[in-house]
Amino acid sequence: MTKEKLTSSRKMDHLRICSQTDIETGTALFDDVHLVHCALPECDMDAIDLSVEFLGKRLGSPLFIAAMTGGHPDTAGVNRVLAAAAERYGLGIGVGSQRAALEKPELADSFAIVRETAPHAFVCGNLGAVQLVEHGTEWAERAVEMIDADALCIHLNFLQEAIQPEGDHSAVGCLDAVRQLCKDVKFPVIVKETGNGISREVASRLWDAGVSAIDTGGMGGTSWAKIEGIRANERGAAGDKALRELGDSLLTWGVPTAVSVFEVAGTGTGPVIATGGLRSGLDIAKGIALGATLGGMALPLLSPALCGEEETCRTIDAVHYQLRAAMFLTGSPNVSALQHARTYITGTLREMIGQQPNMRMS
Amino acid sequence: MTKEKLTSSRKMDHLRICSQTDIETGTALFDDVHLVHCALPECDMDAIDLSVEFLGKRLGSPLFIAAMTGGHPDTAGVNRVLAAAAERYGLGIGVGSQRAALEKPELADSFAIVRETAPHAFVCGNLGAVQLVEHGTEWAERAVEMIDADALCIHLNFLQEAIQPEGDHSAVGCLDAVRQLCKDVKFPVIVKETGNGISREVASRLWDAGVSAIDTGGMGGTSWAKIEGIRANERGAAGDKALRELGDSLLTWGVPTAVSVFEVAGTGTGPVIATGGLRSGLDIAKGIALGATLGGMALPLLSPALCGEEETCRTIDAVHYQLRAAMFLTGSPNVSALQHARTYITGTLREMIGQQPNMRMS
Amino acid sequence: MTKEKLTSSRKMDHLRICSQTDIETGTALFDDVHLVHCALPECDMDAIDLSVEFLGKRLGSPLFIAAMTGGHPDTAGVNRVLAAAAERYGLGIGVGSQRAALEKPELADSFAIVRETAPHAFVCGNLGAVQLVEHGTEWAERAVEMIDADALCIHLNFLQEAIQPEGDHSAVGCLDAVRQLCKDVKFPVIVKETGNGISREVASRLWDAGVSAIDTGGMGGTSWAKIEGIRANERGAAGDKALRELGDSLLTWGVPTAVSVFEVAGTGTGPVIATGGLRSGLDIAKGIALGATLGGMALPLLSPALCGEEETCRTIDAVHYQLRAAMFLTGSPNVSALQHARTYITGTLREMIGQQPNMRMS
Amino acid sequence: MTKEKLTSSRKMDHLRICSQTDIETGTALFDDVHLVHCALPECDMDAIDLSVEFLGKRLGSPLFIAAMTGGHPDTAGVNRVLAAAAERYGLGIGVGSQRAALEKPELADSFAIVRETAPHAFVCGNLGAVQLVEHGTEWAERAVEMIDADALCIHLNFLQEAIQPEGDHSAVGCLDAVRQLCKDVKFPVIVKETGNGISREVASRLWDAGVSAIDTGGMGGTSWAKIEGIRANERGAAGDKALRELGDSLLTWGVPTAVSVFEVAGTGTGPVIATGGLRSGLDIAKGIALGATLGGMALPLLSPALCGEEETCRTIDAVHYQLRAAMFLTGSPNVSALQHARTYITGTLREMIGQQPNMRMS
Ligand SMILES: Cc1cc2nc3c(=O)[nH]c(=O)nc-3n(C[C@H](O)[C@H](O)[C@H](O)COP(=O)(O)O)c2cc1C
Ligand SMILES: Cc1cc2nc3c(=O)[nH]c(=O)nc-3n(C[C@H](O)[C@H](O)[C@H](O)COP(=O)(O)O)c2cc1C
Ligand SMILES: Cc1cc2nc3c(=O)[nH]c(=O)nc-3n(C[C@H](O)[C@H](O)[C@H](O)COP(=O)(O)O)c2cc1C
Ligand SMILES: Cc1cc2nc3c(=O)[nH]c(=O)nc-3n(C[C@H](O)[C@H](O)[C@H](O)COP(=O)(O)O)c2cc1C
Repeated sequence: MTKEKLTSSRKMDHLRICSQTDIETGTALFDDVHLVHCALPECDMDAIDLSVEFLGKRLGSPLFIAAMTGGHPDTAGVNRVLAAAAERYGLGIGVGSQRAALEKPELADSFAIVRETAPHAFVCGNLGAVQLVEHGTEWAERAVEMIDADALCIHLNFLQEAIQPEGDHSAVGCLDAVRQLCKDVKFPVIVKETGNGISREVASRLWDAGVSAIDTGGMGGTSWAKIEGIRANERGAAGDKALRELGDSLLTWGVPTAVSVFEVAGTGTGPVIATGGLRSGLDIAKGIALGATLGGMALPLLSPALCGEEETCRTIDAVHYQLRAAMFLTGSPNVSALQHARTYITGTLREMIGQQPNMRMS
Repeated sequence: MTKEKLTSSRKMDHLRICSQTDIETGTALFDDVHLVHCALPECDMDAIDLSVEFLGKRLGSPLFIAAMTGGHPDTAGVNRVLAAAAERYGLGIGVGSQRAALEKPELADSFAIVRETAPHAFVCGNLGAVQLVEHGTEWAERAVEMIDADALCIHLNFLQEAIQPEGDHSAVGCLDAVRQLCKDVKFPVIVKETGNGISREVASRLWDAGVSAIDTGGMGGTSWAKIEGIRANERGAAGDKALRELGDSLLTWGVPTAVSVFEVAGTGTGPVIATGGLRSGLDIAKGIALGATLGGMALPLLSPALCGEEETCRTIDAVHYQLRAAMFLTGSPNVSALQHARTYITGTLREMIGQQPNMRMS
Repeated sequence: MTKEKLTSSRKMDHLRICSQTDIETGTALFDDVHLVHCALPECDMDAIDLSVEFLGKRLGSPLFIAAMTGGHPDTAGVNRVLAAAAERYGLGIGVGSQRAALEKPELADSFAIVRETAPHAFVCGNLGAVQLVEHGTEWAERAVEMIDADALCIHLNFLQEAIQPEGDHSAVGCLDAVRQLCKDVKFPVIVKETGNGISREVASRLWDAGVSAIDTGGMGGTSWAKIEGIRANERGAAGDKALRELGDSLLTWGVPTAVSVFEVAGTGTGPVIATGGLRSGLDIAKGIALGATLGGMALPLLSPALCGEEETCRTIDAVHYQLRAAMFLTGSPNVSALQHARTYITGTLREMIGQQPNMRMS
Repeated sequence: MTKEKLTSSRKMDHLRICSQTDIETGTALFDDVHLVHCALPECDMDAIDLSVEFLGKRLGSPLFIAAMTGGHPDTAGVNRVLAAAAERYGLGIGVGSQRAALEKPELADSFAIVRETAPHAFVCGNLGAVQLVEHGTEWAERAVEMIDADALCIHLNFLQEAIQPEGDHSAVGCLDAVRQLCKDVKFPVIVKETGNGISREVASRLWDAGVSAIDTGGMGGTSWAKIEGIRANERGAAGDKALRELGDSLLTWGVPTAVSVFEVAGTGTGPVIATGGLRSGLDIAKGIALGATLGGMALPLLSPALCGEEETCRTIDAVHYQLRAAMFLTGSPNVSALQHARTYITGTLREMIGQQPNMRMS
């Protein structure tokens, strides 16, 4: 198979595996976050303002539809459904990696349909950091043009690359490439992980490089160690056994999303998207109380999107209802009030974000 | 159905569901409170004084019969049995929300029976904060008159309202209405939650508004998220699915009772009633050691009350026996000594009432 | 039944129940104590000196045979076996409560056999604090004479009294009686609990009253709440239901032994006996590392004692072997070195002996 | 049986039991160490440098093949396979205790094969501390000569000795013997435990005595309490029952490896080998992040070695792949960078290496 073919058949593999198998591992630690109930909320639940300002645009709610697909004709349907929902609710939405379409322009339609269907939504393009290193600003601009994007997400997914037989194993130059991109372009640049989280140190370097926002893509939801392990298993080749074992040993590798949100929000003034294992409007509320501006979901929207627009809207309504209730019951009439809601932090999350025992002298 | 009919059929729904199904969720965290054994108690267990001063009246014991019912002719029996026990033991007793009878005066009998049966008990009226906002001091006074109450409880139950299809979704004006009520009336005003707890911040605002006492109504006992979820399920309508899902996601929402008692007792000088998940005389003792003056029970008295007076008295005897033993074994000859008993605080409670990790800089 | 008959038939009830049923509840928290391994112990395991000075006498090892029985002719055999072992290994040994024999002198033989069999052992008499209040120094001296005791244990067992139908419910005057006794007599007075532990506060009062040693008798081993619950169950009378329920609610009441040892050892300079849930020589070592001088065992020696001397010696050999190994592997050539062995304290024990969160302002 | 025969039949007992039975107990606590994911590693996974400097020699990777066998003709095969792997990957490798061959020179071949097969590897001799006390520098030098060793490991295994019927029970003089050895010889001296760990105190004494490196041999992997218990069981003699019980009570005795690495690395400047319960390349990475230079494995290499060279290399490849991935994903281009990787420390490990609650005043 050529490299291009590989990329787009991998896309379909991923959608199929994700919608049929349990591909979640570890915990994002939202169970260790307890929003403090406000018995006297002094607001009207039905008048709660879910809208939120994000990179200069007002979105209908903090729910962000995280990057999932595109790049294969069969994925256009999913992207159309998600875009229709984004348009209806005024949500932010990301497309999957545009690499395939940049390599093979005839695949661009499966991405472009997003902007066609959602002329007013906040649409984000998507490119891997490795592709950015290889192709620079040019590809970034082509990716944005392809969908008339409001912003471009650069994804970091080195755990996945490490355990893909066809993976890119070098991360050299990524930070410089991001820095250069931020200098070169006018559109906002968002950097995102895809399930292993952004630490305090990485966040600092990214803000420094000029990124506009960071998406945690933390550990505890969709697990690429799991997905690639399943793919390796399906291929069954002997040489893949080591990859499968590696995947197994890395199943819970990464910064749990709640920890990541806490760390990233503590390092800068740019907005944070909490993604990775958010499974209800309550989790979005917790993410926001930990410091995020938006809460992203990928996997929870995949099955509904495969069903169609109605099921997708029903799912989003439920998420919004839960979020609205959480805001009401913490006495938060709007999202910025929710960012100041008090929480109890318990268990492992408490240990992870508390002071770590001193390691060594030197 | 008219609004009035809705209110009183809901009452019967609640009694039926509560006595037949497991409607408790989460934990009040009393298992994390350990009263320190006093091997040398230097008192006589049989001479221990269970009586306690509450809002100027001496009660026979700290056991408070929490608000449950009234407002439907069929509920009069339960109220009569509970009142008879209150009279016998000199306990404080609350009636359920009087809204139905204020809307439809012919339902007043099911409440009035409490005072008729318990001429000497400390009887508390009951009104929702939302009704207070709508009808002001007038309804409050009518509620008190209806049962010649010693005090009026204003209940806060916004989680329940949020997930009831017919719920009141606005909490605007509640604090002002409470403040106005405290100014207008001579009887003591008690504010109570119904299962999701009162936080430190809400308590401060309430003391400030002039309330005489606060009832924590904390998380860990009767759960309205559970009850309303069951009701939604029984109705089965499609539109209710979202409500049911919301109920599910909020099953453990709220301040656990032990945390709530600790926080509320730390904010003011008025007496605190620990309610929500107290299931033995030992739990009452723990609530008192955490800072409460009384310990309320609703659900544990419902089945006995449906059986009759004898079973109710047997239950109360057992609770008193356990409380007396706990007082004896902590060397507490009376309730105020028990309030100073030493405790070990462990587990999640310890984490929740200890210093929380610092959230954000700004 | 007369009061005397009640006392001695209760003795046999206890032995029977304890040897046939699981009567242990809660945890003494020794699992949360981890002795730090010394890889380079620089001593000879076979030359380790198990002997220990206790109240002026050198004992063969820190294993103390805790008070169990006597007062019924059938119990003499058990006492003889235990005494033979005490004599053989030079151990301290306590007899069960001598009340029955003080009330009914013909029962004295079942106690006196201990001294007859163990002329050189450190033998402790036993009397309840309530009996001391009632009968004063006279009974104490008769108890000591009865077995030519080296010391007298005064036991505190108010939880048991609280849930016995025939129990003494008044603890008034106990501390004064102990203080008077310490003044009046020349023999050392030891105060002991029987399974619910001695707290820091009680220990301070006891040292102050002049006791020579304290035996923690902490929670986590033999449980009188359990035993009396079983007895109540066997009687089956309706009136006993409340007692049974009380027993159930108090199953884990008390200061866990490890906590108790830590607290008592921190309050004074007299020696501490760690008793309650010690189940191996390792537990004795842990008790000593927490501050005790001796480690007592009751239940683990009961079944062996009912089998006979050989099985009892085998059990003691195993305990000694484990203790010796623990001393060797912490590099402790003698018991006082073991008292300074380093430990890791984890889990609930760590929470219980660490600083407790501040309770209330006042 | 003569003493010599005993020693070498014990060797075969050990190999057989270890490869057929579950002989691991407790936990090394590596699950409580979480390497912080670096989403932007800025290095090339395929260019990561696994090599590491150890006692003046550059090794191919931090994987150390821990001492296992030799001393019986049948063990030569295992040693040959392990040595071949060491040679191939440039690893450090230890042989099992050379005592048998020092007592009975015709057994030397099963050790010498290691150097023959691995002319360039870093080969470590092995002698028990007790043998060193008995035979001094002479045996140490003969052990080194036997295999032309680069260093000599002196093992401390007093728990095992304590529960072996034929065990050496005296540890007197070991530290002096080690100090003398360090003075007398030119080759580096490494002191190692065999599964119960080295504490801070012991480490300090060892550095002081002049050792070049310490191998933690911590608790949580191969358990000699378990192995000797199984052997005692197989012998079945009555006298062994006490040994078996002792083994049982010491199953989790010892300093967990993660704790031991942390403590030992905090005491000196010599390199630390983390051994005991390391079961993946990830565990090696964690050991290094806690302060170790090498990570040793014994048991995980035994079954592969019994299978042959191919399986052994496959196992080592997998370990290296995992280690390489962990280095890549923490952004560590080489081992010394990995030593500075940030970790989250949670659970029991956090409690064990944090401040311990204050024990006693005196
Ligand atoms: C089927 C699927 C495909 C994905 N494809 C991409 C992608 O192409 N680019 C990207 O940046 N993230 C991708 N992601 C990662 C998501 O954007 C998100 O960060 C991650 O799944 C965690 O969120 P979740 O736990 O809600 O799924 C994908 C996720 C899924 C489930
Ligand atoms: C059947 C039932 C009906 C209740 N009705 C009322 C009510 O009308 N007004 C009110 O303030 N609380 C009401 N409550 C709440 C209780 O007063 C109490 O706060 C709550 O049940 C927690 O206590 P518990 O866990 O002991 O049941 C009701 C509780 C139950 C179980
Ligand atoms: C059968 C039995 C009888 C006991 N009788 C007495 C007694 O008469 N007096 C006393 O002070 N303690 C008595 N005890 C309590 C023990 O001395 C000891 O404090 C308690 O059992 C805790 O230790 P253990 O967990 O090792 O059993 C008795 C214990 C048992 C098991
Ligand atoms: C079968 C076997 C034999 C061993 N023999 C020795 C030995 O002779 N000398 C020694 O120092 N350690 C010996 N060890 C201990 C190992 O070197 C290592 O410290 C210990 O097994 C912990 O590592 P593990 O959990 O990876 O097995 C042996 C271990 C095994 C499994």
